[in-house]
Amino acid sequence: MNIDINSDLGESFGAWKMGDDSAMLDIVSSANVACGFHAGDPAGILKTLKAAAERGVAIGAHVGYRDLAGFGRRNMDPTSEELIGDVIYQIGALQGLAKAAGTRVTYVKPHGALYNTIAIDKRQGKDVIDAILAIDPSLVLMALAGSQLVEQARAASLTVVTEAFADRAYTPEGNLVSRREKGSVLHDPELIAERMVRMVKEGVIEAIDGTLTKVDAQSICVHGDSEGAVAMAKRLREKFEQSGLTIRSFTATA
Amino acid sequence: MNIDINSDLGESFGAWKMGDDSAMLDIVSSANVACGFHAGDPAGILKTLKAAAERGVAIGAHVGYRDLAGFGRRNMDPTSEELIGDVIYQIGALQGLAKAAGTRVTYVKPHGALYNTIAIDKRQGKDVIDAILAIDPSLVLMALAGSQLVEQARAASLTVVTEAFADRAYTPEGNLVSRREKGSVLHDPELIAERMVRMVKEGVIEAIDGTLTKVDAQSICVHGDSEGAVAMAKRLREKFEQSGLTIRSFTATA
Amino acid sequence: MNIDINSDLGESFGAWKMGDDSAMLDIVSSANVACGFHAGDPAGILKTLKAAAERGVAIGAHVGYRDLAGFGRRNMDPTSEELIGDVIYQIGALQGLAKAAGTRVTYVKPHGALYNTIAIDKRQGKDVIDAILAIDPSLVLMALAGSQLVEQARAASLTVVTEAFADRAYTPEGNLVSRREKGSVLHDPELIAERMVRMVKEGVIEAIDGTLTKVDAQSICVHGDSEGAVAMAKRLREKFEQSGLTIRSFTATA
Amino acid sequence: MNIDINSDLGESFGAWKMGDDSAMLDIVSSANVACGFHAGDPAGILKTLKAAAERGVAIGAHVGYRDLAGFGRRNMDPTSEELIGDVIYQIGALQGLAKAAGTRVTYVKPHGALYNTIAIDKRQGKDVIDAILAIDPSLVLMALAGSQLVEQARAASLTVVTEAFADRAYTPEGNLVSRREKGSVLHDPELIAERMVRMVKEGVIEAIDGTLTKVDAQSICVHGDSEGAVAMAKRLREKFEQSGLTIRSFTATA
Repeated sequence: MNIDINSDLGESFGAWKMGDDSAMLDIVSSANVACGFHAGDPAGILKTLKAAAERGVAIGAHVGYRDLAGFGRRNMDPTSEELIGDVIYQIGALQGLAKAAGTRVTYVKPHGALYNTIAIDKRQGKDVIDAILAIDPSLVLMALAGSQLVEQARAASLTVVTEAFADRAYTPEGNLVSRREKGSVLHDPELIAERMVRMVKEGVIEAIDGTLTKVDAQSICVHGDSEGAVAMAKRLREKFEQSGLTIRSFTATA
Repeated sequence: MNIDINSDLGESFGAWKMGDDSAMLDIVSSANVACGFHAGDPAGILKTLKAAAERGVAIGAHVGYRDLAGFGRRNMDPTSEELIGDVIYQIGALQGLAKAAGTRVTYVKPHGALYNTIAIDKRQGKDVIDAILAIDPSLVLMALAGSQLVEQARAASLTVVTEAFADRAYTPEGNLVSRREKGSVLHDPELIAERMVRMVKEGVIEAIDGTLTKVDAQSICVHGDSEGAVAMAKRLREKFEQSGLTIRSFTATA
Repeated sequence: MNIDINSDLGESFGAWKMGDDSAMLDIVSSANVACGFHAGDPAGILKTLKAAAERGVAIGAHVGYRDLAGFGRRNMDPTSEELIGDVIYQIGALQGLAKAAGTRVTYVKPHGALYNTIAIDKRQGKDVIDAILAIDPSLVLMALAGSQLVEQARAASLTVVTEAFADRAYTPEGNLVSRREKGSVLHDPELIAERMVRMVKEGVIEAIDGTLTKVDAQSICVHGDSEGAVAMAKRLREKFEQSGLTIRSFTATA
Repeated sequence: MNIDINSDLGESFGAWKMGDDSAMLDIVSSANVACGFHAGDPAGILKTLKAAAERGVAIGAHVGYRDLAGFGRRNMDPTSEELIGDVIYQIGALQGLAKAAGTRVTYVKPHGALYNTIAIDKRQGKDVIDAILAIDPSLVLMALAGSQLVEQARAASLTVVTEAFADRAYTPEGNLVSRREKGSVLHDPELIAERMVRMVKEGVIEAIDGTLTKVDAQSICVHGDSEGAVAMAKRLREKFEQSGLTIRSFTATA
């Protein structure tokens, strides 16, 4: 039985460092690599891509709003023309760098505010889908499990992979508990690992009210922005391996 | 007998318009399209690429320094790592947009200060060459006729196309007369057209001192940033046609 | 009887030109000068400020979202901390350039999406108000006549000047007809001038349904982004002068 | 006997953190605060300014080239018009934020490549001087001890404070040993502290060849970009205090 682990990488920018890409690349099977709009400078991205290529980690284009100052976390309302152009541009730039690094982009994961927006906003969702179709319809779209985007993208003939968040609490309906609510973020590495093993094997997560909720996810998102986060991701990987699960990307790598 | 005419296009940015891309695409056989670092926003670039694709105009990546405020016209000294990354990123981004527009990038023309720098600076020249080799060694490099870059790039196995500037005066050595000097820029469309026909047919240009100088150029650069410039480019094209020359890109288009 | 005419100026950016600042400065009594976040580079802003200083035109800080690519016209949701910081930064930058130009900033007019947002959004409205209070409580806030911001800012002890838009249709309730609706933008310079004279003298505008609506505005916004716009603004100024009105800023200039 | 200690602060940008401003503000008497062009976002700058104001630390505008991706460390050749505008803009922006933080800007320290360039380039040096004169001639310019800029700025009637670098080796002529040379950077906190005490008390530093060289500096630059750097700065302050020196800014704070 296979499961994919993904994480956001390549998010340094010039003199500013973020995350421990090298450590995370030993843990994950898929790397969501920043494309320069919310984070990532070309030279730094290229370094991360080379390190990912060496380890056979799959590459996703982590496309975001054009907002370095806000790290792509602020809602924006680009026109469709703008959003389509911005997404194609970012994917193309990463494809170019990936080629130079001896690997290739196999999927697209929208970042931050764009990710959250298209989980519910069909217009921007369509823009992202149209952009992917325009540049390469074989690219897989990574989307929030249970979101409207999953159906929207599949209806448009895109291959979709759904993801769950290792450290987040879920509602009885299978949605993420809002970060504004108490208990929305989990901190115990052991508990997190156990929940994720159960989700992979049984397709359920214990919701915040104690009930079981179905979550259908082929990939699990972990973070690498602090020592604690890296340790948590490491523990998850170990637990998966101990449980007989194979950590493997949902796409072939280059 | 064939000759290529090229021009800088796609240089609008958001609300700011520059040049008349539509008019110029009826004149040129090659479009140097901005890649977002010195000019060009993705939606605008995509529009220009679509218009170029419709007319069968060849697409070049007009790569520049990361300097929107200075339009890529200010000298900079990026490290090799930075410059290589920036050039690959820009080419990749344009390749992605070109694919979405139903065409492809066939050559690379450095822009502004980068163009001038690598005509004489071997370190930055090597960075640009390495970047092209890393993303796609079949891309043609467009370089200033007579510059050191021509030999440097050919020695690195790149295909090089050399260009002349229609409206510029030349020294007896075949170099451009510096813009700071009197008479460096020509304004008479008829004279310009005649000089270029002679250059194409005989391989010589009358230098600023009246002597003839050899200029070996397969492409001619024209501008489209004013009504006068567009008219001058139009006259050049007519003159070429009347002289039995075929205006054709040096590369196949998509 | 006095009336102020204001317009958006200083909106060029590097190599990209926008508007005819020189022509507009002969027409308006108040210049909303871009501060670099949605438009305007320092050297260009400084030039506009010097030209405004020569003519005794009052200077307003035209503060916007940090969004050059979108010209500040796209909705964004900065945190309060970010928005307060961004507004203070922009006002301070313009104050510095104004001092160098021999003039001073006397008012603040939010731009584009920020302007529209704070007409209805109290949180962002409070952020802008707090920013002004933090840097200089004597700065006047220019706000849309009839918007909630007017009361909100006055309650916070700011001096507020309300403005009407010369070329826009009004609802019977005194609000702007949405740009998405037919007839929302007027094009006849003579009609526009007559409507504005009536508004200044009688405090009413004929609404889109033919009824009269009260509009209480001390300043009138005109555009300068095309030849037609400049001509329309010129006609408005003439009409005011012929009607015995004095075009004068609502604040003393330096 | 007084001596000033200065450090570069406010250099975070959005989600990217840099340095430990809080720790450094307990050590230094002068804070060179980023102005947004090479580093620093308004909200983060404001926070640093408030912390500096609480501790009575003097504020300098750390102005740089417009180059976030290169952290202002790459040489650029802006025109005089551009550089003057950029410097005024940055100083004004910081003045605005400083006012909001209850303090004020008392000096200007150029950053990175601009700092190095104007130590030897009179044209750009004049641009920076002209910018300071245009916005506020009472601002002190902080310059490299022994550089041509010191005389150039004094000849233009600016007050100049010269600085030495605590962790750098000096040539027998009193210049910094190039970072490219071996031994150019010192690492022993005790040795560094002793050298600086001697420089303050006797006006000399032991050069890299063992001879004594005169260095006339009223301020000493320390770094805060790593734990080791902070510890080194702390040791320097202690040593100064033990040696009977008073750490005090060369300007009055607000």
